[in-house]
Amino acid sequence: MTNKQILLAARPVGFPKDSDFKLIESPIPNAGDGQILVQSIFVSVDPYMRGRMNDVKSYAPPVAIGGVMGGGAVGRVIQSNNAAFKEGDIVEGMFGWQEYAVSNGQGVRKIDPTLAPISTALGILGMPGLTAYFGLLEIGKPQPGETVVVSGAAGAVGSIVGQIAKIKGCRAVGIAGADDKVAYLTDELGFDAAFNYKTVEDYYAKLKELCPRGIDVYFDNVGGAITDAVFRLINTKARISICGQISQYNLEKVELAPRSILTSLLVKQARAEGFLVFQFADRYPGALVQMAQWLNEGKLKYAEDIEEGIENTPRAFMAMLKGRNTGKQLVKVADL
Amino acid sequence: MTNKQILLAARPVGFPKDSDFKLIESPIPNAGDGQILVQSIFVSVDPYMRGRMNDVKSYAPPVAIGGVMGGGAVGRVIQSNNAAFKEGDIVEGMFGWQEYAVSNGQGVRKIDPTLAPISTALGILGMPGLTAYFGLLEIGKPQPGETVVVSGAAGAVGSIVGQIAKIKGCRAVGIAGADDKVAYLTDELGFDAAFNYKTVEDYYAKLKELCPRGIDVYFDNVGGAITDAVFRLINTKARISICGQISQYNLEKVELAPRSILTSLLVKQARAEGFLVFQFADRYPGALVQMAQWLNEGKLKYAEDIEEGIENTPRAFMAMLKGRNTGKQLVKVADL
Repeated sequence: MTNKQILLAARPVGFPKDSDFKLIESPIPNAGDGQILVQSIFVSVDPYMRGRMNDVKSYAPPVAIGGVMGGGAVGRVIQSNNAAFKEGDIVEGMFGWQEYAVSNGQGVRKIDPTLAPISTALGILGMPGLTAYFGLLEIGKPQPGETVVVSGAAGAVGSIVGQIAKIKGCRAVGIAGADDKVAYLTDELGFDAAFNYKTVEDYYAKLKELCPRGIDVYFDNVGGAITDAVFRLINTKARISICGQISQYNLEKVELAPRSILTSLLVKQARAEGFLVFQFADRYPGALVQMAQWLNEGKLKYAEDIEEGIENTPRAFMAMLKGRNTGKQLVKVADL
Repeated sequence: MTNKQILLAARPVGFPKDSDFKLIESPIPNAGDGQILVQSIFVSVDPYMRGRMNDVKSYAPPVAIGGVMGGGAVGRVIQSNNAAFKEGDIVEGMFGWQEYAVSNGQGVRKIDPTLAPISTALGILGMPGLTAYFGLLEIGKPQPGETVVVSGAAGAVGSIVGQIAKIKGCRAVGIAGADDKVAYLTDELGFDAAFNYKTVEDYYAKLKELCPRGIDVYFDNVGGAITDAVFRLINTKARISICGQISQYNLEKVELAPRSILTSLLVKQARAEGFLVFQFADRYPGALVQMAQWLNEGKLKYAEDIEEGIENTPRAFMAMLKGRNTGKQLVKVADL
């Protein structure tokens, strides 16, 4: 028995490629004093990880060359020298892209597998769900009757944003990259409207058609030309919640674009604000209770895209960066 | 006796030129029922007026072709059919680019000429001062010890922003367009540092030198490449107060620039917010009391650049758009 791990082999130039990652097999570690050993069941791949692959100072240090790729996972405690955990506990934490991880328990959350499928701890009842919740409600502050537009709308975060917007009495309009995603948003998740940015040529005209009362809240996962078009339609006192800019993460050089963002904010007395979900950490428990309630009431739905095998994590990650997933992209690395 | 008026003759393409304006002489009007007739003493020219010359829907309707150019002025009531005003009152209001104006009194403020020079009602104790006050304190929310950068720092608004930043215990760094302005900011107004963007080539390197602890608040009057450089140095949770984008107002087509603003906001969990001073109108009285107190205590200083003669108002306006003024640009059109 070994521990298969995915290391960062090289810092990507532009879009990541297979050779930027390296699969190795190591001995399974033992839990030391105060530690737990976790066997991962689901490993998460998320857009933010692309930033961690660069050697750039950000809110978190970059992954070291030769280090295990970081990231969240859900797994089972198989050895515990920590009184807070016992063997068999299902836990969620930053266990990285590997089959087995040792942890001192800090930042590790126990999951009750009878309440919801454990994979949701990485999705709608985990970091993506909390990101949607706080990014929409605290940064976007949607009011009943307002129009909320979300880019990356079929992704793990965006799909929840639109549904919370509906719960709050807003018009929800999604932007996604495939016709089946558009159908999923409107037919399954209750978005009022959505469009496929890969087949629509004039984003502005389409948004204008779908947002007849303008745009009050924009939840941006994507950036780029889509976002430029949204800014042309924002209403006075609009709020732009900047969650991601995935269109920009893999560019080899910074894109040139019309310099209009700040003028739009000025003319519309509007606000654009970046956020990281961690800044709301002290309010996670209450938010998770609310999200679980909406989930149980059928007001929130979610989808998962599941790859199998730790060795396929880089592939799942790269597919996610290309927008091939609908809902939360996960990698299943062991059975429950 | 006639009323000299400056009309908008044509909508400017790019930078305004003489032929975009027209001087006419009309009969002096009479005050009708409930109206006052005001003889202007000082007429204001401000950057926002450039936007009103375009046929673009904004927070206020554009000036009509053939209409009198709009704008604030201070003058004397010479005829009153309105019980709130009497002959001889000194008043401030939107009287436009003309020597005489009729008003129903709405939005007209009485000025006490014994408290401060009446021209200050168009500057430090008027719209520019209130813009600096609310834009810095309410949007920028500077905290003691933080670094505040202001562009257009020697202008009517910017020069006050830096001084209020100092009052609030911040490091104040100004960006201006002439060496004598830089000297004025540091030697007369107490800015901690300033530089001339027309002689400095690498804005980023210079800002980094002058802001060793990064930038917490940016008060932007200018936009463009200066603002791009500032964004590269913002700290986590920085606030960008967008007051103007004067570098962009006279471009014949929108400038292309690296698409980096939203990524900066995201990585730094920062906020950029446009504002118009009018949104704080219900709080003007308290702010003016505070500003007058600081002025009397010698904590605030101001400069004025005064042109003479209503016929020279377009010239003063265009010089101001080119950044030739230090402090508040005014046109004196009559004696007190």
